[in-house]
Amino acid sequence: MPRTKGDHESRRRDVSEAVWRVLAAQGFGGLTLRAVAAELGATTGLLTHYFPAKRDLVAYALDLLEQRSAARPRRAAGAGLAAVRAALLDILPLTAEATGANRIWVSSWDVALADPALSGDHARRYARSRDKLCDLVAEAQRLGELPAGDPAGVAAGAQAFALGLVVQALFDPTAFPPARQAELVDGYVAALAGSPPAPGGERVVPS
Amino acid sequence: MPRTKGDHESRRRDVSEAVWRVLAAQGFGGLTLRAVAAELGATTGLLTHYFPAKRDLVAYALDLLEQRSAARPRRAAGAGLAAVRAALLDILPLTAEATGANRIWVSSWDVALADPALSGDHARRYARSRDKLCDLVAEAQRLGELPAGDPAGVAAGAQAFALGLVVQALFDPTAFPPARQAELVDGYVAALAGSPPAPGGERVVPS
Repeated sequence: MPRTKGDHESRRRDVSEAVWRVLAAQGFGGLTLRAVAAELGATTGLLTHYFPAKRDLVAYALDLLEQRSAARPRRAAGAGLAAVRAALLDILPLTAEATGANRIWVSSWDVALADPALSGDHARRYARSRDKLCDLVAEAQRLGELPAGDPAGVAAGAQAFALGLVVQALFDPTAFPPARQAELVDGYVAALAGSPPAPGGERVVPS
Repeated sequence: MPRTKGDHESRRRDVSEAVWRVLAAQGFGGLTLRAVAAELGATTGLLTHYFPAKRDLVAYALDLLEQRSAARPRRAAGAGLAAVRAALLDILPLTAEATGANRIWVSSWDVALADPALSGDHARRYARSRDKLCDLVAEAQRLGELPAGDPAGVAAGAQAFALGLVVQALFDPTAFPPARQAELVDGYVAALAGSPPAPGGERVVPS
């Protein structure tokens, strides 16, 4: 019986799942045709049909990471400072799923930094993400919730804050449980707004 | 003629240099006995004398990274907020040498996250670094340069900010030249102090 388009799509989904599981367990450092084949219960020969070279596998994995990140659920957020806060929380490893995806993002930095084309792709991804944050910051400034000033600088700083917090939380989940991460975001957002949180950690920004 | 202790030390230095050059060019993802041997102009056989397994090479590279980071020159800094600012600037890729070392740190995150023992080592390194920042923050609070509050939270936030800025600057050096990085640190420190920078980027914190 001839293979159908459905077979092909279904096999492609299986391959994606296998690539994702290898990334989640071992990062890009452990992403090999052999590891994906083992996860899939297939031969490396079958895999070379999809990925003639290691570089094809890495490019596929990066695309997969971007698609799954783009498709992830986001917090409902109003406008202004609440939207800035929600965008930062959406980046953080606050759930098991977000932790897995972030672990793969951080892992991708090594492979991307070693390759100018991949590095450029990552730079563009982060620039787009800063642009979105910048729009939210500018809106919060218009609403008077943030002091006037360079919104691009605030967005770059906020993105840096979130990415660095991702790294800290991945290495030290005990020191950075979800509630602590959220508290640090609230402190950061409050400082931006010009109202540092009171001693004792009073929640300045509403949930 | 028997090998002397001096020969041994000199060879060890050569090996360290070769490991460093491989890391700077290819990250931990490209760190293999074969690559180090090629860089050293030696056989992989010689290298297995130093590193019986790949894991030994990775552990050695991480130690080397830590030693070189600990030995790097630091900014002279007074007390209080100026010391917090100097500590953050000391982390950033503001020179070619600091860029190389940071690129290796970021690369190490993939290999460390894939191994619980290495991950624990990294968590302890970052916790020590936060503790030092926390002391500086507490001193700035005593001096009245930062509002009262949880110094550990401020230190964790500041470390996150610096690490995330490292990542951004490595991927997009055009968008984050040294002057822009310093400006963002100044904006961050000013926001912590409760005095967001004026529109136009007036320098609130003295250099």
